[in-house]
Amino acid sequence: MPEIIPIHDANDPRVEAYVSIRERDLTGGHGGRFIVEGKVTLETLLARSRFEVESLFLCETRLAPLAGILSEVPEGVPVYVAAQGVMDAVAGFPMHRGVLACGRKGAALSPQNVLPKDGPSTALILSELSNHDNVGACFRNAAAFGADAVLLDAASCDPLYRKAIRVSSGAALWLPFSQGGTGADLIAAAEAAGHEVWALTPRSDAAPLPSLKVPERVALLMGAEGPGLPAEMIARARPVRIAMTEGFDSVNVATAAAIALAHVFAARG
Amino acid sequence: MPEIIPIHDANDPRVEAYVSIRERDLTGGHGGRFIVEGKVTLETLLARSRFEVESLFLCETRLAPLAGILSEVPEGVPVYVAAQGVMDAVAGFPMHRGVLACGRKGAALSPQNVLPKDGPSTALILSELSNHDNVGACFRNAAAFGADAVLLDAASCDPLYRKAIRVSSGAALWLPFSQGGTGADLIAAAEAAGHEVWALTPRSDAAPLPSLKVPERVALLMGAEGPGLPAEMIARARPVRIAMTEGFDSVNVATAAAIALAHVFAARG
Repeated sequence: MPEIIPIHDANDPRVEAYVSIRERDLTGGHGGRFIVEGKVTLETLLARSRFEVESLFLCETRLAPLAGILSEVPEGVPVYVAAQGVMDAVAGFPMHRGVLACGRKGAALSPQNVLPKDGPSTALILSELSNHDNVGACFRNAAAFGADAVLLDAASCDPLYRKAIRVSSGAALWLPFSQGGTGADLIAAAEAAGHEVWALTPRSDAAPLPSLKVPERVALLMGAEGPGLPAEMIARARPVRIAMTEGFDSVNVATAAAIALAHVFAARG
Repeated sequence: MPEIIPIHDANDPRVEAYVSIRERDLTGGHGGRFIVEGKVTLETLLARSRFEVESLFLCETRLAPLAGILSEVPEGVPVYVAAQGVMDAVAGFPMHRGVLACGRKGAALSPQNVLPKDGPSTALILSELSNHDNVGACFRNAAAFGADAVLLDAASCDPLYRKAIRVSSGAALWLPFSQGGTGADLIAAAEAAGHEVWALTPRSDAAPLPSLKVPERVALLMGAEGPGLPAEMIARARPVRIAMTEGFDSVNVATAAAIALAHVFAARG
């Protein structure tokens, strides 16, 4: 069992990383750290995350039910435990789940770091995705259909945002991703690493998804909710469309990604 | 232009349908009515809904921007207009969008009413879906991929819940649906109307989706978030799975529906 450290005072500096979580979420103010909440995500963080765990912060009532998980906490990682009221006061809102942990983001990776060096590769490129639920859902779907990496441009939101991690079913914690640059930079990086880039678009002149042979290395490029990809980015890649009824302009971006990823996964057998 | 009726008092009985919207959402207490909010959903309600519009309730600042839409309000339907503060007091929370409307659910339809009588048919059956976002997303995806009807069991949540309508992109307002009975009842109804029923399940002994010829009349059966379909319902239909990586147990139910619907739509050409 790891070291259990009781916290009696909401101002205790040892739980500073957990103060006013929501406000910090909004301002990106976790300073190189990220917060996960809930039992399932904690399990993923401990079992298969690529990030370092800094500490856990649990409601005292959760200690016994989580005993099995706590045995997996690495040596030297403190487990802070408080009464519900103290925990709520630290977090700044009612922490019903009673399970928080804090990880370190570590050094940012580049597309070259996360794309497989050789052999088959499926990458997902996200450009200007501004909704955390959608980014989380994209990670969940990428994981479900065996994608190797996700490349996000600088304008997309952070996959290590608390809610994005939860929606991703924890996939944001282990599926390799890079974040930075523009969408055009990411197209260039994927191409330089031998990928054919498919730009998903509802445009009628794009090739229907089922008509395409899946190349050994493919990157699926998804654009912003609402406007989708700009014409100049589509022109830099292979435009691919998911056939749908006329007059209904598109499905959710993570849903479109899932359909394309499922097609690639099935084609690879 | 329709009749514009100023409301100065939050207790005015003419806007009773809009009182404490959220509380009524939770208790299903709209009494045969439903509420839509936002400009896009209002446009759908006026342009292509299958439901009767009872009234509109707008913030006074929205009157000018919505002038184009208001010309489509049917004769005799009142448009109530109030200051933001009055509108907030009626609704019970800040009504930033400033656009509400109320429709009548009318008589419930049966599966026989909503399934196409003959020719090709694609139906979506939802059993025990308890999340409004997922039901809304299922409608959006059903509309995108040209499904003809949605059958919901009694245990699934109401597609005319305010948030479900919004997430459906308004599809819940025009795509024919029935609600009632058990999942087994709905399988029987779809089969009686000549549909082959495909039960979507992650079970490894199910047939992979791309391996199946799409019949002229098919119904896609989706089960609850989390547990999925119970074994006895799967046994009553044709088990079909979406291939995904081992160890990742499933995608979101509306995402799975989208993948299956996209496959059927593409196969119908």
